[in-house]
Amino acid sequence: MQPMPHQVMGYDRAITMFSPDGRLLQVEYAKKTVRLGNTAIGITCKDGVLLVTDKRIVDKLVVADAIEKIFLIDDHIIATAAGILSDARVLVEKAQNKAQENRVTFDSPIDTLTVVKDMCSLKQLCTQSGGLRPFGVSLLVAGIDEDGTKLFLTDPTGLYYQYRAAVIGEGEADIQETLHKEYKESMSVKDALALAAKAIKNFLGENFEPQRIDAAYIDAQTKTMKKISQEEINAAVK
Amino acid sequence: MQPMPHQVMGYDRAITMFSPDGRLLQVEYAKKTVRLGNTAIGITCKDGVLLVTDKRIVDKLVVADAIEKIFLIDDHIIATAAGILSDARVLVEKAQNKAQENRVTFDSPIDTLTVVKDMCSLKQLCTQSGGLRPFGVSLLVAGIDEDGTKLFLTDPTGLYYQYRAAVIGEGEADIQETLHKEYKESMSVKDALALAAKAIKNFLGENFEPQRIDAAYIDAQTKTMKKISQEEINAAVK
Amino acid sequence: MQPMPHQVMGYDRAITMFSPDGRLLQVEYAKKTVRLGNTAIGITCKDGVLLVTDKRIVDKLVVADAIEKIFLIDDHIIATAAGILSDARVLVEKAQNKAQENRVTFDSPIDTLTVVKDMCSLKQLCTQSGGLRPFGVSLLVAGIDEDGTKLFLTDPTGLYYQYRAAVIGEGEADIQETLHKEYKESMSVKDALALAAKAIKNFLGENFEPQRIDAAYIDAQTKTMKKISQEEINAAVK
Amino acid sequence: MQPMPHQVMGYDRAITMFSPDGRLLQVEYAKKTVRLGNTAIGITCKDGVLLVTDKRIVDKLVVADAIEKIFLIDDHIIATAAGILSDARVLVEKAQNKAQENRVTFDSPIDTLTVVKDMCSLKQLCTQSGGLRPFGVSLLVAGIDEDGTKLFLTDPTGLYYQYRAAVIGEGEADIQETLHKEYKESMSVKDALALAAKAIKNFLGENFEPQRIDAAYIDAQTKTMKKISQEEINAAVK
Amino acid sequence: MQPMPHQVMGYDRAITMFSPDGRLLQVEYAKKTVRLGNTAIGITCKDGVLLVTDKRIVDKLVVADAIEKIFLIDDHIIATAAGILSDARVLVEKAQNKAQENRVTFDSPIDTLTVVKDMCSLKQLCTQSGGLRPFGVSLLVAGIDEDGTKLFLTDPTGLYYQYRAAVIGEGEADIQETLHKEYKESMSVKDALALAAKAIKNFLGENFEPQRIDAAYIDAQTKTMKKISQEEINAAVK
Amino acid sequence: MQPMPHQVMGYDRAITMFSPDGRLLQVEYAKKTVRLGNTAIGITCKDGVLLVTDKRIVDKLVVADAIEKIFLIDDHIIATAAGILSDARVLVEKAQNKAQENRVTFDSPIDTLTVVKDMCSLKQLCTQSGGLRPFGVSLLVAGIDEDGTKLFLTDPTGLYYQYRAAVIGEGEADIQETLHKEYKESMSVKDALALAAKAIKNFLGENFEPQRIDAAYIDAQTKTMKKISQEEINAAVK
Amino acid sequence: MQPMPHQVMGYDRAITMFSPDGRLLQVEYAKKTVRLGNTAIGITCKDGVLLVTDKRIVDKLVVADAIEKIFLIDDHIIATAAGILSDARVLVEKAQNKAQENRVTFDSPIDTLTVVKDMCSLKQLCTQSGGLRPFGVSLLVAGIDEDGTKLFLTDPTGLYYQYRAAVIGEGEADIQETLHKEYKESMSVKDALALAAKAIKNFLGENFEPQRIDAAYIDAQTKTMKKISQEEINAAVK
Repeated sequence: MQPMPHQVMGYDRAITMFSPDGRLLQVEYAKKTVRLGNTAIGITCKDGVLLVTDKRIVDKLVVADAIEKIFLIDDHIIATAAGILSDARVLVEKAQNKAQENRVTFDSPIDTLTVVKDMCSLKQLCTQSGGLRPFGVSLLVAGIDEDGTKLFLTDPTGLYYQYRAAVIGEGEADIQETLHKEYKESMSVKDALALAAKAIKNFLGENFEPQRIDAAYIDAQTKTMKKISQEEINAAVK
Repeated sequence: MQPMPHQVMGYDRAITMFSPDGRLLQVEYAKKTVRLGNTAIGITCKDGVLLVTDKRIVDKLVVADAIEKIFLIDDHIIATAAGILSDARVLVEKAQNKAQENRVTFDSPIDTLTVVKDMCSLKQLCTQSGGLRPFGVSLLVAGIDEDGTKLFLTDPTGLYYQYRAAVIGEGEADIQETLHKEYKESMSVKDALALAAKAIKNFLGENFEPQRIDAAYIDAQTKTMKKISQEEINAAVK
Repeated sequence: MQPMPHQVMGYDRAITMFSPDGRLLQVEYAKKTVRLGNTAIGITCKDGVLLVTDKRIVDKLVVADAIEKIFLIDDHIIATAAGILSDARVLVEKAQNKAQENRVTFDSPIDTLTVVKDMCSLKQLCTQSGGLRPFGVSLLVAGIDEDGTKLFLTDPTGLYYQYRAAVIGEGEADIQETLHKEYKESMSVKDALALAAKAIKNFLGENFEPQRIDAAYIDAQTKTMKKISQEEINAAVK
Repeated sequence: MQPMPHQVMGYDRAITMFSPDGRLLQVEYAKKTVRLGNTAIGITCKDGVLLVTDKRIVDKLVVADAIEKIFLIDDHIIATAAGILSDARVLVEKAQNKAQENRVTFDSPIDTLTVVKDMCSLKQLCTQSGGLRPFGVSLLVAGIDEDGTKLFLTDPTGLYYQYRAAVIGEGEADIQETLHKEYKESMSVKDALALAAKAIKNFLGENFEPQRIDAAYIDAQTKTMKKISQEEINAAVK
Repeated sequence: MQPMPHQVMGYDRAITMFSPDGRLLQVEYAKKTVRLGNTAIGITCKDGVLLVTDKRIVDKLVVADAIEKIFLIDDHIIATAAGILSDARVLVEKAQNKAQENRVTFDSPIDTLTVVKDMCSLKQLCTQSGGLRPFGVSLLVAGIDEDGTKLFLTDPTGLYYQYRAAVIGEGEADIQETLHKEYKESMSVKDALALAAKAIKNFLGENFEPQRIDAAYIDAQTKTMKKISQEEINAAVK
Repeated sequence: MQPMPHQVMGYDRAITMFSPDGRLLQVEYAKKTVRLGNTAIGITCKDGVLLVTDKRIVDKLVVADAIEKIFLIDDHIIATAAGILSDARVLVEKAQNKAQENRVTFDSPIDTLTVVKDMCSLKQLCTQSGGLRPFGVSLLVAGIDEDGTKLFLTDPTGLYYQYRAAVIGEGEADIQETLHKEYKESMSVKDALALAAKAIKNFLGENFEPQRIDAAYIDAQTKTMKKISQEEINAAVK
Repeated sequence: MQPMPHQVMGYDRAITMFSPDGRLLQVEYAKKTVRLGNTAIGITCKDGVLLVTDKRIVDKLVVADAIEKIFLIDDHIIATAAGILSDARVLVEKAQNKAQENRVTFDSPIDTLTVVKDMCSLKQLCTQSGGLRPFGVSLLVAGIDEDGTKLFLTDPTGLYYQYRAAVIGEGEADIQETLHKEYKESMSVKDALALAAKAIKNFLGENFEPQRIDAAYIDAQTKTMKKISQEEINAAVK
């Protein structure tokens, strides 16, 4: 494996170029951005679907409550991201508009998968058309539809998969292992919060502070978002 | 054969460039991507046309049932892909829209060949117009029309051929040999499933797990898609 | 003659660039593609105009009958190609549409020359406008109009000539020699088929198989296409 | 850490290019521009929200009163910038138009966050689309809405955060430290002015002159902008 | 004179670039193409205006009569070309359309000069706008208008001059000398044909064959084109 | 300070590129153009606002009166420029149109600041959008509005400042020093003319000739432009 | 002064690029083209305004009368050019259209200055927008308006000046000196013709022939163009 030559040859200078071994290097670099982003975890539970994310910011001058790391797409759909957050916001705003249009046009809530597919079409386009760069962000999209609880992961390629539990960003490899070991479908949102918080705490080590954690879930009963308070997080961390 | 010089000269940096020996190197690299993609097999049978594909994912956290590796284009047409799957989805979505339009406009199901030609026109365009890269994906498109059972293979060039049995992606050479030896027009879908599953199993060796296999077919009687259950796959593998 | 320096200087990197000796190198490379393509022969006869082409594929898994190597443009016009076949199909589809429009607008069959000129305008454009590459394909277009039998050859430059008998693709030089020696205006389609089949057989040598040959003609009486059956081909080869 | 090689490789020559470690170097250079810009401080207070900025110009030939360093976006929203000031003006003019449209369309004042999100969408676009460069400017946007006092910081990436007290431009690191130590939510605008003026004075050292300071705030009672006079600034500096 | 350095410096890589000595090298290369093209001669006579051209093709398989080397633009205007013939056809087709529009709009034949100016505007554009290459072709345009006999030469720059007798393409220098010596305004079309045929014969030497010559003229009386038959050409050559 | 490396690295080849230290080098080069341009001085006075410029041309064959170096934008607004004068004219023509539109739409004279902001928006755009170069010109815009006398300086970045007295172009540094020493707000236009003329004379030294000076002002009473005659200039110079 | 390095650095490869010393090198090269063009002289006289130009062509096969070197823009305006003549024609045709529109719209002849400004706006655009090259041509535009006789010179930058007598093209420096010495405002067109003819004769030396001279003027009385005959030119030369 000699990655250097392909870079010297310039195969990684445009998204409209394949390398001789059939790779899209600019898209791979965009994935690198995601792996350097803040940790975000999604877990489907018996009583809802939970998103937990590391806000990374512990600056008393910043209004912590106002940090938008978990985005509301529609009453029943939330999302969080790892990578370039301004890229994420563009995708989220499009999703919000799409969801609103759906309500207006069909008088019914949009399907989570429809939101995800739409997002991925735009992401794919940015891996094929010159003059644009790929989106440097992965998202976890969590929703509760008529037919059940959903959690999707979309990457910079425009690929998506449905997960029971997923992690993106910094520490992905370690935390995935934890999820594999400890995730159970019978978990409650409360259990899942404890699991996710612990996983982030273990990964961050001494840099960890409960204030860094942001969490919210779609409640299976009401099919609406519930923010998890700092107190609940503090409790979960212990 | 000295491939190096043409790369040093930069003939492989744009799809709008022929090499001095008349090749489109970027398109050839896109074909390389396909050969690295997941294995997919298509087989025409006396009682239908079958697609079998390697999902590659064996992660209990992923919702296996939700992995879209076999796409429904219209009631009577399905497709599967090898290569960049987000590229495949763009092509499939266009095909789905085209099929739906056909039903609305002509009040009749679209012809499988029409779907394939349309897909290939877009693929060809992306091998000729600057500012876009070729689609890095081959597809198997299977359908049953008024005039019989069809199986087409489309490559990144925008070429297509009609096959009795075909394979794309990883292990293509090996599995093609198997198909040559063992394919018979008189096969039933059940026989074909056993053949395809065995071929993938042999190629993957110890990495093989029955859960990796996804399969579906268009039934000759009803002219609609039937998903093949994990139990049927497990049975076929033995 | 030192072709190397012009390549080193980069005169062959874009179709919008002349070399110092006034050549369009990208267009010349496109012609190279044609010379590597499958052999195709056209012959005007007293009772029709014949196209014979090498399908190149001898794979029992491919549905040989479905290989489109001779395209129907209108009832009275057919075409075949050498080079990039997906490029050919784009040109053929445009020609089919043009022919259909002509029938609708003028209520009469289109002239073969009109089809050819239209095709060549697009080919020329792709040798002059940046952002596109030249079409890497030559076509033989055969038709029978009010005023007689026609056979045209169009090359990647957008040039066309009317021929009595012509050959494109692999083996062009050898087969042209054979045509010069043996072609007679008084030939019947049957004679011409024997001539063309023999020429291809001689060129391919031991790689030859009768199944590789595809042939069709426009019948002078009915002014419609007749496919030539495998049996007739087999007979002609002997 | 070896930044040189990536520059030699050209990963910093376009915003449509990721470096192999997933960074957008052109955007990072734009942030460098901001760090070289004039100092600007924003502080939320119990009785309003204050912006203080260094005009940098102490030329008696320049009409000091006319230097627009604090921009009025709507009656209740002001902004100031660090970096390329002509870039800032483009963003401010768009915000002014947006605010005016909001009054016309909804007959109500625009929300500060809406102004900020709109500004950031354009900033993000300029980090993704070729043919444009990123905006080389950060802004502090201060407003008082129905639901309280707001202070936002937007950077060249299109990211924004809500702050209690923030600083951009030259001396950012030093002044941030001062803010951390001395900021209190119970501060009055008068206290905050003294704090900000002192911070700038300490940073500039002997280059400091009271005339360099420009300051204005949105008054919590009237929800309108009040300019702070040179006399008040002179008093605050002592 | 050291032409090499400017090529090494890349001043000849785009038509949007002047060399330091104020030349447009790409346009000069296009002129080179013309000088390598087939010979074409135009001569104004007392009884008409004649075009004579070298078809270059002496292949019995080509339908010689169908070789379009002298193009009919309108009843009273013909043209011939040297250089890239597919480029010529684009210009001729535009001229044909322009002439037809003129008849429809003004109910009168178009002026030869108007045709030439129109052609030259397009040629000039292709020497100034990036994304296109210059037309690699010179044309002789011959017509008889209300106010007399006209012969124009247009070059790749978009320049035109009115001539009494002119030559373009291969052998230009030699044949121009012959024209200077032997051309007389009192010549008949028959005399001029003999002169032109002899000039081409002398230049081609042993490669000459009467069948290579194509000739036509606009008759001064009828103001319409007359094709010159092979017999007349054979006679003229002797 | 090592400016060379950034040039070698190519950071100064496009306006869409920041250098690693956050500079826009192409814009800095455009400012260089301005510093090489003809000297132009603006001075606000108690009885009007004056523009004085060096015509540079002392050729009796040139019609000196017709040299447009001071442009009338509207009755009450004039401008002069240093740098690329054809660039200046584009900006002035747009300003003239804008002013005229304002009169038609609002039935009132345009505000000087509005003219300046509009001009600067276009200038800014040309520092951000690829495919254009920055305007290589600074302008002094002088006007008398309802609310008083105005003098603005706009640079190639699209920045503007309001001045009491300002100088652009050749000798800027020297003349600015003179203005600092000798400018008084109580000056009359006559005093200011003497000051400006002397400053230019001192800078040009022996190259100075009174005929090089062009001067005009907006009169505070009539709010219209008055040209200053050569006689008045000659008198002022002494 | 070391011009070489800037060329090596590539600052002269695009019009959208300033060199570090603030020059637009591509525009300077375009001016070089003009200095290599044919000589053209314009002289304002008491009884009209004269243009004299060197046709350069002394080929009896060319129809000398038809060489358009002095263009009629409107009844009262003529122009001549030095540099790329096909560029000149584009500008002249636009001016002709503009003049005609003026007559139709305002029912009055267009002002010479309006023609010149319009021409220069287009020229300026071609020095600022990528994808186009600058016009490689200077023009002398001569007209007689309501308010007197006008002679303008426009260069490739889009700059213009009004002259009493001006020269462009080859020999510019020498002939300008002659004009400086011998031009008088009291000259008649006849005197001016003798002066211009002599100047060209002296410059060309033994290459001079009276037939190379083309001349025309706008007559002050009739305000229309008068061509000067070869006889008058011959007389003037003696």
